[in-house]
Amino acid sequence: MSGRLIGVGTGPGDPELLTLKALRAIETADVIAHFLKRGRNGNARSIVAAHWPDKAIELPLPYPVTTEMDRREDGYKAQIGAFFDESAKNIAEHLDQGRTVAVLSEGDPFFYGSYMHIHVRLAPHYPTEVIAGITSLSGCWSQAGVPLMQGDDVFTVLPGTLELSDLARRLGETDSAVIMKVGRNLPKIRQALEAAGKIDRAIYVERGTMADSVVTPLAERDDSPAPYFSQVLVPGWKDRP
Amino acid sequence: MSGRLIGVGTGPGDPELLTLKALRAIETADVIAHFLKRGRNGNARSIVAAHWPDKAIELPLPYPVTTEMDRREDGYKAQIGAFFDESAKNIAEHLDQGRTVAVLSEGDPFFYGSYMHIHVRLAPHYPTEVIAGITSLSGCWSQAGVPLMQGDDVFTVLPGTLELSDLARRLGETDSAVIMKVGRNLPKIRQALEAAGKIDRAIYVERGTMADSVVTPLAERDDSPAPYFSQVLVPGWKDRP
Repeated sequence: MSGRLIGVGTGPGDPELLTLKALRAIETADVIAHFLKRGRNGNARSIVAAHWPDKAIELPLPYPVTTEMDRREDGYKAQIGAFFDESAKNIAEHLDQGRTVAVLSEGDPFFYGSYMHIHVRLAPHYPTEVIAGITSLSGCWSQAGVPLMQGDDVFTVLPGTLELSDLARRLGETDSAVIMKVGRNLPKIRQALEAAGKIDRAIYVERGTMADSVVTPLAERDDSPAPYFSQVLVPGWKDRP
Repeated sequence: MSGRLIGVGTGPGDPELLTLKALRAIETADVIAHFLKRGRNGNARSIVAAHWPDKAIELPLPYPVTTEMDRREDGYKAQIGAFFDESAKNIAEHLDQGRTVAVLSEGDPFFYGSYMHIHVRLAPHYPTEVIAGITSLSGCWSQAGVPLMQGDDVFTVLPGTLELSDLARRLGETDSAVIMKVGRNLPKIRQALEAAGKIDRAIYVERGTMADSVVTPLAERDDSPAPYFSQVLVPGWKDRP
C-alpha cells in the first residue's frame, strides 16, 4: 500500500490563517516536505512551526535558482524542471514506503504554487488530496481593508513582468485587478496605471497578514524595488448599492 | 466603548476549511450575523454550525431579493441598497452596546461577498477586522485537482452574465480563467469557449469541497441550468518545466 500525497495550503503568512484541515494533515503526516530558498528557513515552515509534529520526517526542497535568472531563459527551465523531477522522486520514495507526505505550500497550493509541479508528476500514480489555502490575494486585500470587486465585475490577476503596453491595456479593460510580482517592476507598473487612468485608486501592500505589513496608496510609495511579498491592488466596484 | 466589527470568511463549504482565526472569532463573538436566502438556513451558518457558541446572539440577515430580479434593474438596486442600510443599522446597534459582532461570509469576505456592503457602511465608524477565508475558486480547483496558472500567467475571473462576444474575447486574451455565475448562462458560456478555442480544456465544477460535489469536463455536461455553487475552470499553464 502506497502512502498519500497531500498538498497543504498554509495561507499567506499569519499562522492563525491555517485551516483546521491543514492543521490535521500536518499533525498526522509521516513526512513534511517544504520548498525554500537556499540558506533560508522557508516561509511555509515558519507559518506552521507551532504545529510541527516531533515524529515527522522533514524533507526540505531548496530551489536551485529563484530570482537570479530570468524564468523565460532555457537554462532556468532546464534547472527548475530537473529540480521538480528530483523533488518528486524523493517524495515518491516515501510514498512507496507507505508514508503519508504533506507538501507545504504558501497561500493556496493551486494558485501559482510550486506544489503544482509535484502534483502533475505524482497525482496520476498515488492517492492525492489538495487542501485549499488562503491566497496572498485574500491576505493582502483583507489587510488593506479595501473591497475590490462585486456583482458582475471582471477581476484580473496580472504579473508585473508583462510589457508596459500590455499591462496598461489589460488594466484598462478589467474592472478590478491585483498586480503580483512587483519587485523591480514598480516604475513600469506605475506608468501602466497612469496610462489606464487608475493610478489614484491603486494601493500598495507589502507582507499582507504578516507582523510587519505595509499598506499605502501607491502614489505615496517610491520606486525602490519591492520585496517578494508585495502586491498592488486596483479596486473596481463603481456601482455600490 | 463600542464593540468590534469582524468580517469572518467561512470558506467554500467544507467546515474543515475554516481557519483557526475564524474559529476563535466565532467562539468569542457576542453577536453572530449571517446573510441568507429567505426560508433557508443560510450556507455560512451551516458551515460553522458545529462551532456555534450557545451564548451568542444570532442576527439573521435575509436578502429581500436574490435571483428573481435582474441586478441591473433600478428596482433591484433600490431594494438591496435599503436592505444593506437596514442590516448595517441593526449591526451598529449591537456595536454601540459594546458587543463584538462577527458577520459570517461564505468564501472570503472581500471576494464578491455581501459583507463588503456592511464594511463600507460601518468600517469608517467602528474598530473593524476582516478575516480572510478560502474562496470558492480555491475550493473548486482543489476539488477538481486541476492546476490553472503558473509563473507569469494572467488569470481572469469572469461572470457568466457577460455578453457572448465580450466573454469570448476575454477568454481568448487570458491564459487561465474561472467563470462564475454559471446558472442559466451555460449555453452562452459553451459558445464563448468554443469561439475562443478553449472548450476542450474547460471543466465544470458544482459544489466544490461540499459532500455532493460534481467535477466533469464541460463537454460532458448538458445545458440545463447550473446551481448557484458552480464554476467553469479554464486552465492555462502551457509551458510546464
